[in-house]
Amino acid sequence: MAVRALWFHDAALFVLDQRALPGRTTILRLTRVEQVADAIRTLTVRGAPAIGVAAAYGMVLAHQDGRYRPDRAARILRATRPTAYDLSVGIETVRAAWAAGRDVHAAADSYRRKIVEECHRIGIAGAPLLRNASTVLTHCNAGALATVEWGTALAPIRVARERGAHLFVWVDETRPLLQGSRLTAWELARERIPHAVIADNAAGYYLATGKVDAVLVGADRIARNGDFANKIGTYEKAVVARENGVPFYVAAPWSTFDVDRPDGHAIPVEERDPEEVLEVGGKRLAPRASRARNPAFDVTPAKFVTAFVTPGGVVRPRDLARALSKARQSED
Amino acid sequence: MAVRALWFHDAALFVLDQRALPGRTTILRLTRVEQVADAIRTLTVRGAPAIGVAAAYGMVLAHQDGRYRPDRAARILRATRPTAYDLSVGIETVRAAWAAGRDVHAAADSYRRKIVEECHRIGIAGAPLLRNASTVLTHCNAGALATVEWGTALAPIRVARERGAHLFVWVDETRPLLQGSRLTAWELARERIPHAVIADNAAGYYLATGKVDAVLVGADRIARNGDFANKIGTYEKAVVARENGVPFYVAAPWSTFDVDRPDGHAIPVEERDPEEVLEVGGKRLAPRASRARNPAFDVTPAKFVTAFVTPGGVVRPRDLARALSKARQSED
Repeated sequence: MAVRALWFHDAALFVLDQRALPGRTTILRLTRVEQVADAIRTLTVRGAPAIGVAAAYGMVLAHQDGRYRPDRAARILRATRPTAYDLSVGIETVRAAWAAGRDVHAAADSYRRKIVEECHRIGIAGAPLLRNASTVLTHCNAGALATVEWGTALAPIRVARERGAHLFVWVDETRPLLQGSRLTAWELARERIPHAVIADNAAGYYLATGKVDAVLVGADRIARNGDFANKIGTYEKAVVARENGVPFYVAAPWSTFDVDRPDGHAIPVEERDPEEVLEVGGKRLAPRASRARNPAFDVTPAKFVTAFVTPGGVVRPRDLARALSKARQSED
Repeated sequence: MAVRALWFHDAALFVLDQRALPGRTTILRLTRVEQVADAIRTLTVRGAPAIGVAAAYGMVLAHQDGRYRPDRAARILRATRPTAYDLSVGIETVRAAWAAGRDVHAAADSYRRKIVEECHRIGIAGAPLLRNASTVLTHCNAGALATVEWGTALAPIRVARERGAHLFVWVDETRPLLQGSRLTAWELARERIPHAVIADNAAGYYLATGKVDAVLVGADRIARNGDFANKIGTYEKAVVARENGVPFYVAAPWSTFDVDRPDGHAIPVEERDPEEVLEVGGKRLAPRASRARNPAFDVTPAKFVTAFVTPGGVVRPRDLARALSKARQSED
């Protein structure tokens, strides 16, 4: 059975609590926009595309409630996390329907279906890239949990596997919150896709010793020139991949592309609670007197990207602007 | 009071249990060579120079016992960990005294004093490098705990600070065993040296945003051409430092230089128990069905090293062979 990160049913948004995985499978039922905002803030729901869909349904809950204006609901949802661009796309899609007096529920459903379908197309577009790549490195979780279904980085792996490819996935554990060892490993284990969890520090060792054929990651926001924000640590992997001549692919639906932002400068980088670094699994491991810093994302310049895997196909950074305007025209 | 990783007293080797830090300060009393071997294997004592000194005293305990031949004692100690070159230097130093019928205790004491003195000289040689570097990034623990006293990477920081420098240290937490957040942070906190612990993934972010003036690390084994093995993740930091024009220094006593090894190829890399990656602080965080890989070291090519900080001064990689033969001659 395929993983689904969230679904809307009977006037409520149901989300799989990603904080509890892989230990416990807990479903939360959210009926108020503030609950959706909390779920996004606390990483109960996470991953840029999934955050966008959750926010779209958050707008539906606010509309249902009757006591919110669309602007206020949008503000509540937008104040949760600054980096993922999909958040505003999800919010704006439903706000436009609300403002125009159209069916907000239908607008959110259609947005969700579009994201899922785009992720599937990412899988189809990306699978041929893995034809000669038997070992793939991924960072963080860009799977079904991050995108409702299919995933971004994991979609080509799933499609390639459906077609009979024998793949092995190196899973960066992804400190501090271990989205790799907790979530990506959980998705891969469910589907019996061979994988090994490694400390983030070990990615360079395997890249340098010829044990990685391709790196495949998701993104939280991609600027027009191809600079992109993703989970902290992505930049290091990209630099080391290029140093070793290993192709580096970034998979994302259109909702992650921030076409109004010319480049990666000033992409807002969320800094989270230092306790996430000082504690592991609720246990304090650093000295009491020590402080920490905890940037949740970094920005990787486009020059490190071999290609973007998009719903419209595989796009080199230099062709990105053209691909984006083409995608925009076909949506209009 | 200065940290000391180990000392010999009243026919026993006393070691600070580094597995228990920073939570508890536990001193273990070791009286048999097998106990020393276990302490090295379990990382109770760790850090290449400290391992060498512990092994030297392990030889003393075997000699004291009366039931060991020098070769057997050496084999027991050598079988513990393959990467740190200092291990064999410490063992061979005492074995030579034993074979020649000299005082083995005096030989081990003299080896310890030499390591401590060399680390102090590393501090004096390296401190001027930090004159214009107010923020330093370090990886793993190359402090007093790793070297008996002073440290290698931390020695220049300590000397610069004695001379009034205002330094800030970024401490990579260093997964999987967190020698950064547990041990380096503990040493810095004791001496009130300002620092912040970061996820290993965040080093690239601070290197790329101009927040790191210099990277300073230790080493476990350095080949004649300057390729060197150090804690897993060091290679990534070196590649990203060069990409951003940040100087990258490797500090080590002479006992870490393996002059018989022409380059980094075939430096043995220890692979440790995968549970160290799958569990954190004794708690399983990855799915039961997931496996892990756990290389403990990586090898960084000399081209990424700005300079080695040695007891004989600051040495560029291209001058290393000359500096090593000079150091050897002065010892003869």
